[in-house]
Amino acid sequence: MNLDDRSDIRDDAGASSVLGAGDRTLAAQLAARLALRIDEHALKPGTRLPSIRGYAAQQRVSRSTVVDAYDRLIAAGLIESRRGSGFYVAARARREARRAQRAREAEPAVDAGAPNVVWLLRSMLRQAPASPQPGAGLLPTQWLDSELVGAAVRAVGRTMGASALSYGLPEGYLPLREQIVQRLALADIGADASQIVTTGGVTQGIDLVARHFVAAGDTVFVEDPAWFVMFARFAAFGARVIGVPRRADGPDIKVLRNLLTRHHPKLFVVGSVLHNPTSTSISAANAHELLKVAEQYGFTIVEDDIYGDLHPGRGAAVRLASLDQLKHVVYLSGFSKTLAASLRVGYIACVRELAEQLANLKLLTGLTTPEVTERIVARVLAEGGYRRHLDRLRGKLDAARDRTARALERIGAKLFTPPAAGMFLWADFGRDTNVVAAEASQQDILCAPGSLFSPMQLPSPWMRVSAATSLNPAALRFLAQALER
Amino acid sequence: MNLDDRSDIRDDAGASSVLGAGDRTLAAQLAARLALRIDEHALKPGTRLPSIRGYAAQQRVSRSTVVDAYDRLIAAGLIESRRGSGFYVAARARREARRAQRAREAEPAVDAGAPNVVWLLRSMLRQAPASPQPGAGLLPTQWLDSELVGAAVRAVGRTMGASALSYGLPEGYLPLREQIVQRLALADIGADASQIVTTGGVTQGIDLVARHFVAAGDTVFVEDPAWFVMFARFAAFGARVIGVPRRADGPDIKVLRNLLTRHHPKLFVVGSVLHNPTSTSISAANAHELLKVAEQYGFTIVEDDIYGDLHPGRGAAVRLASLDQLKHVVYLSGFSKTLAASLRVGYIACVRELAEQLANLKLLTGLTTPEVTERIVARVLAEGGYRRHLDRLRGKLDAARDRTARALERIGAKLFTPPAAGMFLWADFGRDTNVVAAEASQQDILCAPGSLFSPMQLPSPWMRVSAATSLNPAALRFLAQALER
Repeated sequence: MNLDDRSDIRDDAGASSVLGAGDRTLAAQLAARLALRIDEHALKPGTRLPSIRGYAAQQRVSRSTVVDAYDRLIAAGLIESRRGSGFYVAARARREARRAQRAREAEPAVDAGAPNVVWLLRSMLRQAPASPQPGAGLLPTQWLDSELVGAAVRAVGRTMGASALSYGLPEGYLPLREQIVQRLALADIGADASQIVTTGGVTQGIDLVARHFVAAGDTVFVEDPAWFVMFARFAAFGARVIGVPRRADGPDIKVLRNLLTRHHPKLFVVGSVLHNPTSTSISAANAHELLKVAEQYGFTIVEDDIYGDLHPGRGAAVRLASLDQLKHVVYLSGFSKTLAASLRVGYIACVRELAEQLANLKLLTGLTTPEVTERIVARVLAEGGYRRHLDRLRGKLDAARDRTARALERIGAKLFTPPAAGMFLWADFGRDTNVVAAEASQQDILCAPGSLFSPMQLPSPWMRVSAATSLNPAALRFLAQALER
Repeated sequence: MNLDDRSDIRDDAGASSVLGAGDRTLAAQLAARLALRIDEHALKPGTRLPSIRGYAAQQRVSRSTVVDAYDRLIAAGLIESRRGSGFYVAARARREARRAQRAREAEPAVDAGAPNVVWLLRSMLRQAPASPQPGAGLLPTQWLDSELVGAAVRAVGRTMGASALSYGLPEGYLPLREQIVQRLALADIGADASQIVTTGGVTQGIDLVARHFVAAGDTVFVEDPAWFVMFARFAAFGARVIGVPRRADGPDIKVLRNLLTRHHPKLFVVGSVLHNPTSTSISAANAHELLKVAEQYGFTIVEDDIYGDLHPGRGAAVRLASLDQLKHVVYLSGFSKTLAASLRVGYIACVRELAEQLANLKLLTGLTTPEVTERIVARVLAEGGYRRHLDRLRGKLDAARDRTARALERIGAKLFTPPAAGMFLWADFGRDTNVVAAEASQQDILCAPGSLFSPMQLPSPWMRVSAATSLNPAALRFLAQALER
């Protein structure tokens, strides 16, 4: 049995032993290579590994080297030893449990006083699909289309020439930007490719915008509640971050006008379509009024539209950039929620001059975004499968959202709005959800307490509940008990 | 003739015409899709496109839509019309010239007074292999192994399951980090995977380090000359950036000690192996002394080792992290120079606690790096082809460096050190190389003037000359003329 595609470990060992790194390095190399093959399913769960003696002979290494390599894999939870029978690739569930445990070890502890942003982010990335995650910020990975993405990856691998190995352009891969221009046109946002800068997801987009616009002492308006990661981004550059209440039809314009008598914000960040965490969308009247206020007071609107592709019937969604045509609006979106978060492909659309400045800033802070991932997304968009995939996603989401909303109402939680679209339900639990989240964490259940979505991070009775990942009996039982206290 | 893998443009048009975007959107979609297929070589240079009438019938769109689409492709330089004969995919050289022109249009103008960092970076990314680039910062793409990378991309596309669509871990893809641990062991740097954080290249690594360590008013020491992008990074966070002269065997310790009587730096960034721009490597004695000084004065050394894999005979290179074992050293490296810049895969190795903090910072500023590209690099490293590829690269580089050095000496430039290893020659041209670079720019020749590598950006007679890309008759002729003035 040959476990390796190429058997040149001995070869490498020749080089390493010159350095005296010796058998330990060899064992680690062996382990790393096997780990990759297990992770990629080239070695499937249940596969029996060769005996220590046989593998040592085959690889021309000492038996103690193989023992060391297998020990490392056992410690990593990738293989297991069965007494008298040998070594076997561990079951997927066991590997994932082990991986989740590792991630948990790296997490800061959470307590009811202060669940923090890093804790929530790390918990969300924990990759343990088995544990209940009503606080999840992504759709379940099995809802996504790994074949759609995988086929695009293979196509990119087949067609990449030498030029694909260079840095690429700071603005991003041109065919992708052309595809984005087409998608924007469908939302009646007029732009050409020179107005698009690709980013490593909307998070990097916000970071670039913050670096460009914000100096110490500046004021930035955000919605309250809103997507929590950006608050710290602006604060890190010395901004004063002030919340404007979010209503079901958009920011509260009356309060906004009032705040503007005392503050002079540089930016106002608005989640127009399927706002995070309420999943409400701005009305045409609110958008029109908001843009007039922005013009009157001279601030820029940063429109975060990462969830927009999940809106049913594109015509019904109002985008600020569609009304304003990118004059006072910097528009951000991407493909992490709908295609694959691991690709990290997002973009900024804005006036050409600003796009050039943002591309320069991107260049100085990280050179370029990976052209390989941008080729993958361009390929998916060009093939036309993305639209069909979105249709399927929306269908699944609609069904799950209705059931989740009914379940929440049954246990007594109050919804901010009736369920309409999007990934989230914003629900009032009638008690401090920091306490709920801390209790949940002890039971390995992930909740997203309202405090994190508030610019002041004040305790809140609200909680963001994922429409797609909360229909778990353990999760619902926990939430019901939480409401009873 | 069917130019599309799937012919569903009409289908999309149904949706778009509801929005009133109509035929313009349709034409743009058609153009974007053809552009991608040309860029990916599915449509090869010289291929005749279908007639307007034929393509309109096939795609069930109006003729004016096809005319509009073809016009866009002509404007982008991707196809050309031959009178009386039809439309053809343009030759690769013509497309690249057109792309270079676009990139040039987006560049700030350069003048002899102040060639700036953005200008040099943009010029380097211009992707015009035809124009002479003695100032290049990458190896020629044809020296890289697109099949090695392409095979890994395809393998990743074949083996990715649903879990590959999620965010991945903030520390980076575990099998890649395990591979990196093995590579570090070969350089006698002991670390485990929990001490590695992947980054979007060394540039993002420096940015994370700057954000973590530097507050306004802090002092950071850099080498003079050194890699220019980081100066602005530290300055952006309010640091005072002070240069320590770089000698052939490392930083000048005497000057360093002298500066330490007046300054209290938080960090000192050192290019230990094949330092940019001099391609010199630190000596064991200098490294030992430098680490003692760091311990005595309590500053952290940031070791930039992006060029280390190009050093011949790994044993001969001294790394600060090998002596210090990551106690006072934060170590950065990556695969942009040797494998593919477009993958943007780099990493930081440091003590575990700092690695966790840097991973949290990475999380807050951009969530994660793309797991897809990290899977690609992990696959290349696991297959063993990387080492053979490095051997080939070094061989080519040695030959080109010797010839370039002889050519430079023949025309009268003085070399900082005899050519030994690495990508660059640091050469004294006896006159202000800002003026040389500005003259070169007018002839579409890229030069990298010494001023950019100096923390003070003062005019300098030095210039960084790429060993691999300067053996161009036009480049050498220009440099010879520059020396005669």
